[in-house]
Amino acid sequence: MDDATLHEAGELEALRRFLPLLPAGDATALGPGDDAAVVAAPDGRFVVTTDTMLEGADFRLGWSRWHDLGWKAVATNLIDVAAMGARPTSLVVALAVPPSTRVAALEEFARGLADAIAAMAPGVGVVGGDLGTARHGVIAVTAFGDLEGRAPVLRSGANAGDAVWLVGALGLAATGLRHLFAAAVDEAAEPVRDAAERLRRGAHGASIDAQLAPVTPIGAGALLADLGATAMLDVSDGLALDAARVARASGVRIALEATGVALAAPGASLEAALHGGEDHALLVTIPADVAPPPELDGHPVRRIGVVEAPAADEGGTVTLDGEPLEARGWDPYRAG
Amino acid sequence: MDDATLHEAGELEALRRFLPLLPAGDATALGPGDDAAVVAAPDGRFVVTTDTMLEGADFRLGWSRWHDLGWKAVATNLIDVAAMGARPTSLVVALAVPPSTRVAALEEFARGLADAIAAMAPGVGVVGGDLGTARHGVIAVTAFGDLEGRAPVLRSGANAGDAVWLVGALGLAATGLRHLFAAAVDEAAEPVRDAAERLRRGAHGASIDAQLAPVTPIGAGALLADLGATAMLDVSDGLALDAARVARASGVRIALEATGVALAAPGASLEAALHGGEDHALLVTIPADVAPPPELDGHPVRRIGVVEAPAADEGGTVTLDGEPLEARGWDPYRAG
Repeated sequence: MDDATLHEAGELEALRRFLPLLPAGDATALGPGDDAAVVAAPDGRFVVTTDTMLEGADFRLGWSRWHDLGWKAVATNLIDVAAMGARPTSLVVALAVPPSTRVAALEEFARGLADAIAAMAPGVGVVGGDLGTARHGVIAVTAFGDLEGRAPVLRSGANAGDAVWLVGALGLAATGLRHLFAAAVDEAAEPVRDAAERLRRGAHGASIDAQLAPVTPIGAGALLADLGATAMLDVSDGLALDAARVARASGVRIALEATGVALAAPGASLEAALHGGEDHALLVTIPADVAPPPELDGHPVRRIGVVEAPAADEGGTVTLDGEPLEARGWDPYRAG
Repeated sequence: MDDATLHEAGELEALRRFLPLLPAGDATALGPGDDAAVVAAPDGRFVVTTDTMLEGADFRLGWSRWHDLGWKAVATNLIDVAAMGARPTSLVVALAVPPSTRVAALEEFARGLADAIAAMAPGVGVVGGDLGTARHGVIAVTAFGDLEGRAPVLRSGANAGDAVWLVGALGLAATGLRHLFAAAVDEAAEPVRDAAERLRRGAHGASIDAQLAPVTPIGAGALLADLGATAMLDVSDGLALDAARVARASGVRIALEATGVALAAPGASLEAALHGGEDHALLVTIPADVAPPPELDGHPVRRIGVVEAPAADEGGTVTLDGEPLEARGWDPYRAG
């Protein structure tokens, strides 16, 4: 029975085994099982973000365990909610996989969702979902949060004179991916699970974990908003590109300092720190007279630069130790 | 330029052309462009439902135009919100397509979303999304609604003595799909666009439209709740199976009457009416002393049966003119 495929078990049996593994959530007024769920929004507004993880483009089953995929879905989506200064409340998950997938794989995925929530965002509920079939795996997550009366922290609020802080680590996930591509593929560049598992237990384990099952500073978002954050975002496409987004939206120059950036990127190259992507750290600007604690939600908080007034002809640039930094990052339609 | 592919144009250019086509929405506090959107929830709760449409399993680009796909994504997701007795407010859309897809196709998809909203749910906004790449198209929609102070209408509230009503039509979408498979495929069973377009302009046009770009009674959900609906759902997997869901959840027998069912299924066989699926009509139980109007939100309202007390050993059955009806429907993992 534990080796039954979805095709053998059918949707009802799969759901019967999948749904009880999901956390109900403190804000859930009505959970899965009807046409729609109902979630409390005590603030009178809710924060919403959506993202898809696609087999091939975003994950490989030869490297990621199903538990990792559930974990990463929570870690990467709730951090977008946190980056608005909100407390995550709930999420919905749509999953499409080949009918030959084992029901046990779905259960591992559900345990990954539940374990990630317990570790990073206790009280969050999985309030709904959708199971379907696809030739290649599709994981679509939509996540919600409550602002608890706060104004949302946008990308556009940075002011000249603010300090630039980073909560989390830079370059680690990209370094992990580089190790996987270097040492966990066969001659045809296909993933090799045994090699990936060995890497994960070895000296590069932290970077492999950051790539496959990241721990993101979800609890820090609301704390940073309460500290007076003027702008904030989740660094997902590389620090250089994401800092440029804040600079452009705010009409400022972001002046990064290489010393601070290097400290925020232990074990990673400067290239990975600046352009690597998938960091899921929080980049945040805070008035200079506010000193955040050295750690928030278990993640280091490091000062990596300052916000400056732009020159007259300058529309949102980023510099590193005074030199212009290319806003080069990840474009899914141009990769490969 | 209009023929540029996503690979040639890149994500930023694609978004620059896609986003302005989307309606902003009356409840939108913060639209696309930041880590997350913010939506008003005046009721202090929000209704949420999610669904994926996958190329191959759920749609074929040889039959559906991109405008149809945007339209159907709105029509089939907002009806789930309506089936709770809520007024839809907003949705997020994640789209993954091959990099060879033209940007113009994305624009048609956006116009389909916008046109469907204007026709079926004016005031709803598209507040966020995600663009990615996949070998086969993926459309993941999550939709939201406001209960405006109402209790959600569940599947479990039907009482013996209620009348069973249907808002919309049965069997039409399944009939359309049958016509497409019969007359719009080549020898290899691959879709043929010209043949599909010809069918759509011909005598079977209404059923083809019901399959590819359905008009669903989204506005009727809140009106039915206000009339005193005790249970309600969106008929998506066939009347027999969905009626059984209400019967089981409510602990009642649903006694359907063939005359009423046939009237609700003009131009469709009884088999298609009972087991066809993708009707996206509202199945609703209402106390017998309430007579709903003959039309709601432009859709016919027809009495198709009554709710009866179950026999002692009976756990939620459905009958048709007194004979047990098989709860046979659609299971994505067992199809094909």
